[in-house]
Amino acid sequence: MGLIVQKFGGTSVGTTERIQAVADKVKASREDGDDVVVVVSAMSGETNRLLELAEAVHADPPARELDVLLSTGEQVTIALLTMALEQIGCPARCYTGAQVRILTDSSFSRARILDIDAEVLRDDLQEGRVVVVAGFQGVDEEGALTTLGRGGSDTTAVALAAALEADECQIYTDVDGVYTTDPRVVPEARRLDSITVDEMLELSSLGSKVLQIRAVEFAGKYRVPLRVLSSFEPGPGTLITYEDNEMEEPLISGIAFNRDEAKVAVIGVPDTPGIAADLLGSVAGANIEVDMIIQNIGQQGLTDFTFTVHKRDYETTLDLVQRKAEELGARQVVGDDKIVKISLVGVGMRSHAGVANTMFKALSDEGINIQMISTSEIKISVVVDDKYLELGVRALHKAFELENVTPVAELEGLSES
Amino acid sequence: MGLIVQKFGGTSVGTTERIQAVADKVKASREDGDDVVVVVSAMSGETNRLLELAEAVHADPPARELDVLLSTGEQVTIALLTMALEQIGCPARCYTGAQVRILTDSSFSRARILDIDAEVLRDDLQEGRVVVVAGFQGVDEEGALTTLGRGGSDTTAVALAAALEADECQIYTDVDGVYTTDPRVVPEARRLDSITVDEMLELSSLGSKVLQIRAVEFAGKYRVPLRVLSSFEPGPGTLITYEDNEMEEPLISGIAFNRDEAKVAVIGVPDTPGIAADLLGSVAGANIEVDMIIQNIGQQGLTDFTFTVHKRDYETTLDLVQRKAEELGARQVVGDDKIVKISLVGVGMRSHAGVANTMFKALSDEGINIQMISTSEIKISVVVDDKYLELGVRALHKAFELENVTPVAELEGLSES
Repeated sequence: MGLIVQKFGGTSVGTTERIQAVADKVKASREDGDDVVVVVSAMSGETNRLLELAEAVHADPPARELDVLLSTGEQVTIALLTMALEQIGCPARCYTGAQVRILTDSSFSRARILDIDAEVLRDDLQEGRVVVVAGFQGVDEEGALTTLGRGGSDTTAVALAAALEADECQIYTDVDGVYTTDPRVVPEARRLDSITVDEMLELSSLGSKVLQIRAVEFAGKYRVPLRVLSSFEPGPGTLITYEDNEMEEPLISGIAFNRDEAKVAVIGVPDTPGIAADLLGSVAGANIEVDMIIQNIGQQGLTDFTFTVHKRDYETTLDLVQRKAEELGARQVVGDDKIVKISLVGVGMRSHAGVANTMFKALSDEGINIQMISTSEIKISVVVDDKYLELGVRALHKAFELENVTPVAELEGLSES
Repeated sequence: MGLIVQKFGGTSVGTTERIQAVADKVKASREDGDDVVVVVSAMSGETNRLLELAEAVHADPPARELDVLLSTGEQVTIALLTMALEQIGCPARCYTGAQVRILTDSSFSRARILDIDAEVLRDDLQEGRVVVVAGFQGVDEEGALTTLGRGGSDTTAVALAAALEADECQIYTDVDGVYTTDPRVVPEARRLDSITVDEMLELSSLGSKVLQIRAVEFAGKYRVPLRVLSSFEPGPGTLITYEDNEMEEPLISGIAFNRDEAKVAVIGVPDTPGIAADLLGSVAGANIEVDMIIQNIGQQGLTDFTFTVHKRDYETTLDLVQRKAEELGARQVVGDDKIVKISLVGVGMRSHAGVANTMFKALSDEGINIQMISTSEIKISVVVDDKYLELGVRALHKAFELENVTPVAELEGLSES
């Protein structure tokens, strides 16, 4: 008899029929002998409906009141799910974030969880009840309602699992696990039985939308056993692990890509200390987030400096940088928003220097020119022309044989060059 | 500089446009120099929408979860109204019932307010903010969300006004005050500038739907100056008073009527002690509420016993009483659900014995037969055939000259007979 935290997102509770299906699933887990805490999001569409109401009365709805408004979304779901559970003879009780209580800081609309007092839930569990908790929301020290931002229900689930020392935190979504890459791009993409938390972090931040990145960070910090699985189809999903057993790690876990970035390059800028800070300072000052940053070795006292931003910030960034570049006496500023970033992710690559070479060769064999390269311990990212997205991802998926479950040993040959 | 509590019901906040209109009205009060606390209901239609969701997942939705569900309705409104106020430069802050906190008992769906800790609101008022509070809801000692039942927002407003010792509690509705009778029946019906709380109680309980009866009781208990006025039209509305200055009281304040009752008569029942308890016991046991009760003086050891119930309980009551009447050896049981109750209400009638006679004569002049009569200190009710409703109410309205503002002195002649 263990304790499981199950989280169901907006699509999984999008209609009263789906809420009833979730109730059946929760009841089945309960009957398997586990205590169950359920975390739910707002019914899909509800948050947008509420946002439209807000925008009808305020041009730029204040975050404090927006949190009061949006937190009703999950409150509706917890009440309905609890009713559905009681209807099928499964005793249950529901709690808002404030009732639990999930203490957060006062950063309305993007609050961070500071503490959870889950003792009240233990009493319910001991009395044989399923506990249903509103995701995405909390309360600050002064009693004001807060929300954790979109996707925050994942964080609520992980934080509750940590506080209750749950045996597993199950995140039910509309996909049945984490894949080696997007199956819409590569039909042979394979569901991973497990993935390390570091890999998951790289995959999440690179645009795989399965899990919210803060939830994964949280899970890593408290080593909460986390499983991603489907609300709609049976199956074991993907387990996120913390053990770093290198011998059993596959070389590469997956391939992520991101179509949302644009590139800005400053060419021929005097190579003096502080150049990067100067160039990026104006961009950061406009609250624009920068992703990849590359500076090449300078020649003749000049250097080239390239970075990527979100496409929506492209024009603004180009303007800002052009002005700054003139000041600095740079030769030229060029930009390109027709790019895509493709990333190989895998803890296994740390000890296999040849991975990069295999990657570059696979792309070159398809005639794909690499515009930028950036690497970390467990990731290699390249920027290429966006027309090469599908071709590039497929070539890499094949080169690293991700369609097969392949032990590391067989892939050793790849690291030669 | 005073403190006003203003309550706006579901129709008054039924759309975002109406919420903006309420914000304008609140801001104007604020600019008149008063501190303002606003209590709002759920947007009209919202409660029904939520109830439908509940009924889709549970055949008989449990009250505890229903309160969690329904209390989201007002939470949406407080957030939107606060945003609308801030948009027009009127600083505001909103609170749920739990946040205030409005402590209630644990009778989910019909909780009673036990205590209000309004201190947190005083800080906001002192800092120049309008305070927006969710009506209809509270929290019990264990932190569970409760609701006060439909119309409970009036009670919230009055209770807050009492706790804050407000100078006036203004209930904004879709009518512009309390009328001498229903203007749809008597076009000459006149808005009353003021009415005593006792009269208001009689009018409320008799079916005038302007104010929730519990709110009026509450106002009476704490002597909260209460005013009913229109959300949509300007005007002073009707003030509910507590002073009992008989010389200035009009004889009759208004005429109420109720089409929802049915009559059951037990004829020729042995006139022994305990007969009433015996007959009514079986009805009360089925949780049926009895309104008027009349027992005539018996002849030849027999008596007639008549009472009224809500129309929806008519068939059940008739069954129960027929069985009991047989046991008691009564001669006959007759029922009639084609009746209407018409009531004259006025604190002035206490000292004017002729009122009843004037009433009976006015009805008789129109050929209206009176089936039952019941009187209290400030009320005379008669039951007549329901086809006489309009005729009867109009005749009485005219007989007591309710279309004019008439000092008591001029009406003295009426009490002759």
